[in-house]
Amino acid sequence: SRTIRLAVIPGDGIGQEVVAEGLKVLRAALPSDTKLETTEYDLGARLYHRTGETLPDAVLEELKGQDAILLGAIGDPSVPSGVLERGLLLKLRFAFDHHINLRPGKLLPGVKSPLAGEPSIDFVVVREGTEGPYVGNGGTLRTGTPQEVATEVSLNTAFGIERVVRDAYRRAQARPRKKLTLVHKNNVLVHAGHLWTRIFEQVGREFPEVTTDYLHVDAATIFFVTQPERFDVIVTDNLFGDILTDLAAAVTGGIGLAASGNINPSGDFPSMFEPVHGSAPDIAGQGKADPTATVLSVAMLLEHLGLTAEAARVEAAVAADLTERTGARSTSQVGDALAARVAG
Amino acid sequence: SRTIRLAVIPGDGIGQEVVAEGLKVLRAALPSDTKLETTEYDLGARLYHRTGETLPDAVLEELKGQDAILLGAIGDPSVPSGVLERGLLLKLRFAFDHHINLRPGKLLPGVKSPLAGEPSIDFVVVREGTEGPYVGNGGTLRTGTPQEVATEVSLNTAFGIERVVRDAYRRAQARPRKKLTLVHKNNVLVHAGHLWTRIFEQVGREFPEVTTDYLHVDAATIFFVTQPERFDVIVTDNLFGDILTDLAAAVTGGIGLAASGNINPSGDFPSMFEPVHGSAPDIAGQGKADPTATVLSVAMLLEHLGLTAEAARVEAAVAADLTERTGARSTSQVGDALAARVAG
Ligand SMILES: CC(C)[C@H](C(=O)O)[C@@H](O)C(=O)O
Ligand SMILES: CC(C)[C@H](C(=O)O)[C@@H](O)C(=O)O
Repeated sequence: SRTIRLAVIPGDGIGQEVVAEGLKVLRAALPSDTKLETTEYDLGARLYHRTGETLPDAVLEELKGQDAILLGAIGDPSVPSGVLERGLLLKLRFAFDHHINLRPGKLLPGVKSPLAGEPSIDFVVVREGTEGPYVGNGGTLRTGTPQEVATEVSLNTAFGIERVVRDAYRRAQARPRKKLTLVHKNNVLVHAGHLWTRIFEQVGREFPEVTTDYLHVDAATIFFVTQPERFDVIVTDNLFGDILTDLAAAVTGGIGLAASGNINPSGDFPSMFEPVHGSAPDIAGQGKADPTATVLSVAMLLEHLGLTAEAARVEAAVAADLTERTGARSTSQVGDALAARVAG
Repeated sequence: SRTIRLAVIPGDGIGQEVVAEGLKVLRAALPSDTKLETTEYDLGARLYHRTGETLPDAVLEELKGQDAILLGAIGDPSVPSGVLERGLLLKLRFAFDHHINLRPGKLLPGVKSPLAGEPSIDFVVVREGTEGPYVGNGGTLRTGTPQEVATEVSLNTAFGIERVVRDAYRRAQARPRKKLTLVHKNNVLVHAGHLWTRIFEQVGREFPEVTTDYLHVDAATIFFVTQPERFDVIVTDNLFGDILTDLAAAVTGGIGLAASGNINPSGDFPSMFEPVHGSAPDIAGQGKADPTATVLSVAMLLEHLGLTAEAARVEAAVAADLTERTGARSTSQVGDALAARVAG
């Protein structure tokens, strides 16, 4: 028998509601000889208003001992923009070296895309998670005056790029189409862009079966809406990955279905699974949020923990639920339905 | 009688072909008492291969004396990525302080959007053109080794942001819906993002009639495909504007129709008009390129020169042509048809 220690960070807004349903489905999916030990951490706007803290050192220490983290959503209008995002969400991604930010873009059967012509979409974005413009390097001079200057520094290392690029090649190699697209903007951001391009080509020599191409990020957004079928695996930088995966969510039926994993393949620190959507304060507490993205993130969590059959069962439950959806259901009704399918 | 001195830079790939049609329509549109004096500059891949130069100082000096510039497209696979873009296109934008990069996103009658449900789309993106991650500040350390580090620095000034934000408010004020959306990523790029946000709010006090909102760039891409009607005027940074305007082109029927103006409202230096599309080397020289984006850029050029009625005539010709399009036509057939409409 096995025990899984799971840290749960519901966070802000609809985070609470969707995480509750994710846990319901997770419990229904686990093999009977597997014990789930959850520890909930009340981080986000409430803690910040109470103590001014976003991620206390003691919590960070405790989290290190967990097998994985399930996160709902971070961000609240009562807190200045960036405080919780940088102080909690990005702090976790950086502290636990979540360099593989995995985001599938798949149009599931029964789901309507806003694109005309019912395209078939099935790709995965491997977004770098620990470098680029997200490092928090920058500052302001003459702050608050008409002479203010603000900088943001994108930091990119061969080490950091190589590991995510190799991971993406491995994933491409394992898929039927074996195609990998690098997305950057190497005609303008020439320093970072050429480093990405060089490493992409170098590592590619280890994967002769993988077909590759390159797109500038602006051109990539065009193909996301005009020809999404062309993508199989995409590897890209932290900021471009952020933008492309929201667009991917939109064309595959919406942010209510988009799952993600912040993965540290070394296992040195816990990986973290979260829906791509935000805290959606406008609909929080009303039972309106779709927990499906969180449930699909739970499937990624199961996969990461080696519970491949269980992950597949959760995915199958979601697929079945989506094709049979009729009428509006509350957050917990969707969770109940999915848990019942997984259990039955 | 008036003389317009126009610099023409056809550039690479399809640039040559589309610019020829743009000039045809421009000539047909000009009032009979207006003389057009064009000077063509052979810049781009050919010059680069011949001399190693991208924008000779003498040419830059000469261009200063022109009333405006019409540019086709820059970039060729035979030249390393970034050389022509940074050394020619961006050099012109920066040298001539083209801080207003104006890019309409309008779904014209008769044009099919890849979005389902025939949305009505009519917005304009005011992209900052002289700052942000485009400044070319950055470099590499331990270049070419496994220890390489590459940086890209985004530079943002209150001065630079305020002028583009004020321009965008003015445009919003002049439009029926009077709505302005700021797009940035102020929850991650907090230094630049907060400067943009602060100035956006400050300048907004001068425009009490304009309704404002803010979107993170990732969320904005979602609304571009799910709810493009919500946008009226958008103001954003150089890189986000680059990405959003390609996406805007995609949802409004394609990059073959997207026009742009690189504007210096002071008139100290010539403004530059160009289609948003690239040089498309794969179809160059085949008469397949759609010159409509260039023709619409010519309309923006006319507007900029104060020839408002003439600009409207060109736009009306394009609108009529689009609703009546049948079958495939060559680049010059489209140009001829548009010129005939404008003249007639
Ligand atoms: C909330 C924000 C910091 C985050 C990001 O930018 O990575 C979100 O948009 C995401 O994609 O997970
Ligand atoms: C060619 C390239 C440098 C340019 C840009 O990034 O601005 C283009 O994409 C554009 O949008 O005009």
